[in-house]
Amino acid sequence: MEWTREKRYLPYSKWDADTLLHLQAQAANSPYQMHYHLHPISGLINDPNGFSYFNGEYHLFYQSYPFGAVHGLKSWVHFKSSDLVNWESLGLAVEPDTMADSHGAYSGSAREIDGKLFLMYTGNHRDENWVRIPYQVGAWMDKNGKVADKTILFKNPDHITEHFRDPQILKQNDTYYAILGAQDKAEKHGHIDVWKSKDLKNWEELGFLDMGTDDLGYMIECPNIVRVDGHVVVIFCPQGLDKKIADYDDIYPNMYIIADDIDFENHKLINPGKLHNLDKGFDVYATQAFNAPNGKVYEISWVGLPDTTYPTDNENWANCLSQVKELSIKDGKLMQKPVSAMQELRYNEKEISDENKASQQYEAELTIKAGQKGSLYLAANDNLTSGLKLDFDTENGTLILNRSNAGQKVSVDYGETRQANFEANTDLKLNIFIDHSLIEIFVNDGEEVLTGRYFADQNNTKLAFAQKTHYNGKLWQMKTIL
Amino acid sequence: MEWTREKRYLPYSKWDADTLLHLQAQAANSPYQMHYHLHPISGLINDPNGFSYFNGEYHLFYQSYPFGAVHGLKSWVHFKSSDLVNWESLGLAVEPDTMADSHGAYSGSAREIDGKLFLMYTGNHRDENWVRIPYQVGAWMDKNGKVADKTILFKNPDHITEHFRDPQILKQNDTYYAILGAQDKAEKHGHIDVWKSKDLKNWEELGFLDMGTDDLGYMIECPNIVRVDGHVVVIFCPQGLDKKIADYDDIYPNMYIIADDIDFENHKLINPGKLHNLDKGFDVYATQAFNAPNGKVYEISWVGLPDTTYPTDNENWANCLSQVKELSIKDGKLMQKPVSAMQELRYNEKEISDENKASQQYEAELTIKAGQKGSLYLAANDNLTSGLKLDFDTENGTLILNRSNAGQKVSVDYGETRQANFEANTDLKLNIFIDHSLIEIFVNDGEEVLTGRYFADQNNTKLAFAQKTHYNGKLWQMKTIL
Repeated sequence: MEWTREKRYLPYSKWDADTLLHLQAQAANSPYQMHYHLHPISGLINDPNGFSYFNGEYHLFYQSYPFGAVHGLKSWVHFKSSDLVNWESLGLAVEPDTMADSHGAYSGSAREIDGKLFLMYTGNHRDENWVRIPYQVGAWMDKNGKVADKTILFKNPDHITEHFRDPQILKQNDTYYAILGAQDKAEKHGHIDVWKSKDLKNWEELGFLDMGTDDLGYMIECPNIVRVDGHVVVIFCPQGLDKKIADYDDIYPNMYIIADDIDFENHKLINPGKLHNLDKGFDVYATQAFNAPNGKVYEISWVGLPDTTYPTDNENWANCLSQVKELSIKDGKLMQKPVSAMQELRYNEKEISDENKASQQYEAELTIKAGQKGSLYLAANDNLTSGLKLDFDTENGTLILNRSNAGQKVSVDYGETRQANFEANTDLKLNIFIDHSLIEIFVNDGEEVLTGRYFADQNNTKLAFAQKTHYNGKLWQMKTIL
Repeated sequence: MEWTREKRYLPYSKWDADTLLHLQAQAANSPYQMHYHLHPISGLINDPNGFSYFNGEYHLFYQSYPFGAVHGLKSWVHFKSSDLVNWESLGLAVEPDTMADSHGAYSGSAREIDGKLFLMYTGNHRDENWVRIPYQVGAWMDKNGKVADKTILFKNPDHITEHFRDPQILKQNDTYYAILGAQDKAEKHGHIDVWKSKDLKNWEELGFLDMGTDDLGYMIECPNIVRVDGHVVVIFCPQGLDKKIADYDDIYPNMYIIADDIDFENHKLINPGKLHNLDKGFDVYATQAFNAPNGKVYEISWVGLPDTTYPTDNENWANCLSQVKELSIKDGKLMQKPVSAMQELRYNEKEISDENKASQQYEAELTIKAGQKGSLYLAANDNLTSGLKLDFDTENGTLILNRSNAGQKVSVDYGETRQANFEANTDLKLNIFIDHSLIEIFVNDGEEVLTGRYFADQNNTKLAFAQKTHYNGKLWQMKTIL
């Protein structure tokens, strides 16, 4: 089947329900489907949206195209949770049903305001000549999940191209601010554009955020600002970023900057640091973070990349979300660790021995003693000729995730290994989460995270060291959440 | 909207996907929706089907009409579980896509045979004059959930009317047997019809099962035979049963008989006992039971009744399944108790006090001391003017569940109270499961069960005794499973 433009933008009402039921069953029955991470009910998912706390629960949406593994006409699908781990699926929430979002209810954020959840997102509109107009839309969700009162708030000003999207709604004192990814018309550079409003109706552009670095590539997507341990952290996705500014391997990276503070009115970070790659693995993008009312800061990411195909495309579904991580700052560096409720998914604890028939759904916690080099295989076959390989060197403080021989290939043009560094000559603690075709590795309690997809044979469930290694560790099966 | 015959039997491919996505979201967002019981993804569900153990997991399906709260064109929707409590939704599995099941893939059973799951069910076919032909169909499901090779096994013989359905596949020694609900042409009485096959292809009718009672009404649906603690238990749904034979209040009851044994070849129960009402509550029907390989016997029921409307019909969805119960026999009586994994859903344990703001999702375990009469309110408002009322009398050994003042009304023509009896002058132990609009009450560890739907305001979450009562008890919030 060819995915023509016409087909990708066909209204949902022109698809038939039998096709959708089959797509839903196909996604549910796939051996690659995730079981304790948010995943597609059918079709393709991408950015997390509207991550927020409302009416006593956490809410989250994701970008969804329900009819195949392509970026077609997007809607928001809704989930809620009391613990950020066990999610309840509430289905289609924001659909492309107005002029402003006629070609997709694109990404955005949410914030509880006066007993309702205010959604602010980009309505993707194309005119009759297929020229894009990026409307920034406001909408209100009530406690029963009903979304109403969609209103166009503003569109791209004259100095910004059609690449203007992904608003994050923020509040400081009595003023609302929104930050958006933008491309200026003059230089075609990527920026974070800052807007303000007193009433959520009348919006005024303040200008591009000064982050201390001149050229951040040709576009920035999915900007987020959170306050973490007395600092301001900006998380964003620069496209076309010069690798001299910050090292990365993926087609597009997800970066962050730590600053002392932000001056919204003068659209300026105070004492911004350098760019850092948020995740040292393969497939993290479009991370969304927010300051929760309990004082904690949470993030969740799309595990998937733009302009990238995955093996499950042949099964008509693609991608998933990461687990939710809690953010903190230690020694000037962002720490990302699993939320506490992740431990409640654990069952059937056992000690890790040299040869482990694990499963497709587990967490392994390992401490590898200092002064060793070696390899740990995961999702491997019995004789370790196929599997994810994790090369550790605690003398030099390096960890390399290698998916070159782990089954079906993904994005080989961007390399098949990823590296994280840690303090040399110390023990190395790893928390490794395996969920069928997703791996998340937390290094030393979240100093680094490596996230990636892999597509191994479902019988390849061995976890083993390639050589005699001094370590101790535990392994837990993980419950299915959804 | 009027549910014409044409509309109810419209192929799934003639419905549009946008409508289905909205129906799914509506069912998910309803305040009456169950959260730790299997419930509709959209539309109406009824009988559990294919309850079985296959490929190391429990499998279950239910009858589904996805497009509204009516009995339209039915399909099977698939779930699996490792513990009979946490189910994974696998979506549409058996659809009405052949001549034999053109008007619905109706109820049936499943059994693991030679590495596949054999499904045996009733294909509902209507000819051009709308005359029903009940084909009994075999199909095979592989380990990836794919159903193939649908074959017509047999249809109603000449002496049986079109009311011939719900095959349960059984095996004894080297022979397969099937039992079906049937109505004879001569007398228009309900029967359980027994068939045999050596190869699952060639089937021979043995005759109506002699259960020791002449007239069991005009039709029997959903017959099941299980072996429990050295006895044979027949669970079935007689329609039009004379209340002199067995007492019941619902429009149609779900009954059981305990016998010493069954002689399949002579289609005869050995020393059958009397009929007993399986559930003393309001809404249990179409119970399906099977002997699991671990030696235990499990049942699950439709919570819903034929020819009955429910308040959620207005929300375009209806009904749910009960929790799975484990069967045993004690003093000649069937015991039904929660499976052990139900306890793993519990969290936030607290002692029950005289005034409890509970939730819409909890288990309460109470022991009411002997020698007391009184009332316990559940799902009640603050001043107890609205709520489910449970009148207990431990002097006389009676328990009455009253839903007359619990919110929106259901089936008032069949009475608004249900009674269970227990041994007088003893303590009364109750395990009460509340799931938004479903109540399941286990009396004295499963000597009796009362199951019912109710439709209270979602703010009515009080649990309280109407008068000073001597008791002790605990209350747990229950996790969401799906």
